Amino acid sequence: MALIFRTDAARAAAWGAAFQRQMPELDIRMWDAPGNIADIEFAVVWKPERGVLRGFPNLKAIFSVGAGVDHLFSDPELPEGVPVVRMVEPELTRGMTEYVVLHVLRHHRRQREMEANQRAEKWEMIEVPTAPSRKVGIMGLGELGRAAALALAALEFDVAGWSRTPKDIPGVESFHGDFGMDAFLAHSEILVCLLPLTTETEGILNTGLFEKLPRGASLINAARGGHQVEEDILAALESGRLSEATLDVFREEPLPADHSFWGHPRVTITPHNASLTDPDSAVRQVIENIHRIRRGEPPTNIVDPKAGY
Amino acid sequence: MALIFRTDAARAAAWGAAFQRQMPELDIRMWDAPGNIADIEFAVVWKPERGVLRGFPNLKAIFSVGAGVDHLFSDPELPEGVPVVRMVEPELTRGMTEYVVLHVLRHHRRQREMEANQRAEKWEMIEVPTAPSRKVGIMGLGELGRAAALALAALEFDVAGWSRTPKDIPGVESFHGDFGMDAFLAHSEILVCLLPLTTETEGILNTGLFEKLPRGASLINAARGGHQVEEDILAALESGRLSEATLDVFREEPLPADHSFWGHPRVTITPHNASLTDPDSAVRQVIENIHRIRRGEPPTNIVDPKAGY
Repeated sequence: MALIFRTDAARAAAWGAAFQRQMPELDIRMWDAPGNIADIEFAVVWKPERGVLRGFPNLKAIFSVGAGVDHLFSDPELPEGVPVVRMVEPELTRGMTEYVVLHVLRHHRRQREMEANQRAEKWEMIEVPTAPSRKVGIMGLGELGRAAALALAALEFDVAGWSRTPKDIPGVESFHGDFGMDAFLAHSEILVCLLPLTTETEGILNTGLFEKLPRGASLINAARGGHQVEEDILAALESGRLSEATLDVFREEPLPADHSFWGHPRVTITPHNASLTDPDSAVRQVIENIHRIRRGEPPTNIVDPKAGY
Repeated sequence: MALIFRTDAARAAAWGAAFQRQMPELDIRMWDAPGNIADIEFAVVWKPERGVLRGFPNLKAIFSVGAGVDHLFSDPELPEGVPVVRMVEPELTRGMTEYVVLHVLRHHRRQREMEANQRAEKWEMIEVPTAPSRKVGIMGLGELGRAAALALAALEFDVAGWSRTPKDIPGVESFHGDFGMDAFLAHSEILVCLLPLTTETEGILNTGLFEKLPRGASLINAARGGHQVEEDILAALESGRLSEATLDVFREEPLPADHSFWGHPRVTITPHNASLTDPDSAVRQVIENIHRIRRGEPPTNIVDPKAGY
């Protein structure tokens, strides 16, 4: 029984140490030195090369290092019948909630404009409304979207959410499905994207969607670059349809040197650091699921391969 | 029975309309045209000229338009024996909470550095901790400080508070008095000033205090410019004692054109708009207190003239 893992290089040591501390008897294999692959029952991975997972003949579960699993389902050779588990851990959720609350408040209180005034050495009174009169829309009401929506509702924002299937979140008006989308967008003065990336949501942040928002709405995307049509964001900023955008994710990362977002006065760029999986907390969740699988139970937080999340 | 009011010119119409709507029988006098001053029983004021209030012989209460009353107690001729009432209204409290949460998250998540990276077109991974590992200190646990502390505690920050007298706020470690100050400051990686301005707190944000903070702490002052020794803030930023400062208030407002804060890369200036009294909500509170006084009861939110808040 062995587990193989692949994270980004900078964090590999922390993951290895967490496995060692929490389950010293576990036979841990490195991605580049898998040893006898017949031993490998568990894979904990971020962006594995295509086809590699299929090569492990006795794989019992594939764990994603992050909340998203698009990096797994984009592998056309992903082994069928092996459960894929998404990462649900409190630190990841907490980090995303903090990111969303920060950037919603930043848009809500027009902080970017005040900083531009400061650079121009201009003292200008800006009266900002309070949260109950601000409509915020969260697209995607999974683990991360739900937590962010609750935190914004606790600050008394007028929060709505949209998801594919109906959800019931206290203090959050919930819309769902294609039918609910237009009413949801009409409600979203600040739109936050926390959707999973699937074939259905790829490119969803486009001109057609922006036109259904209140004029001058703003956008926060902390999900995936694949959700956004970047030229449409630029056009919507140009036309005034969007007042500003805060983006943590991009079609190409790192954002290329010549990209128009870099110098755009109404785009805020964060370097895909909205939230990071905490190795200790994540390893705890992986080990719990290993125990479940050994007892013959299904793992928690399993992904529906048809839906892709 | 008449009421006289003085607010900033831009908001006078909204105040007048609120009085008219909520208590049409009230005889409202304008500051510049008080009529027979013997009629005037109530004054609702912001920064009245010195000595004017003393001229109203039948004054029963003085209401501050804002949370602070330093603009009243700085009048050496403030009539003795007339109760002074500070403004407590939900919108004022809410706006301040939103300001504090925004700027604490901004410091916590190093947002200013990420924006500097964007201006330099630099994609640099910055790993930010989550709230439970961040110590935030709120100086001043009155109406505004208490609400801000609770909102930060709900986001799971490690929150401490300091006030002159002991307070009991769920989820907030409370320090008080001279004796509690050093331990409080040692706890404050992000220090938020929401103190009343009194002879005791004037100039409290100075080198001596900054030296008791953890090295690289940051400062948010949303109270009064009189709390801060501005050259000491600049020196502390220079020495690295303070990593950054967000200031809503200044010794002189508007901030003078040649002030070093304007172009300082680690100072964020907001134009004293952290929170504004909402006329409708404020007038409701004033009228309730007028009714109390007429029934012979003391008004609520009365200021202790000895403490100055």
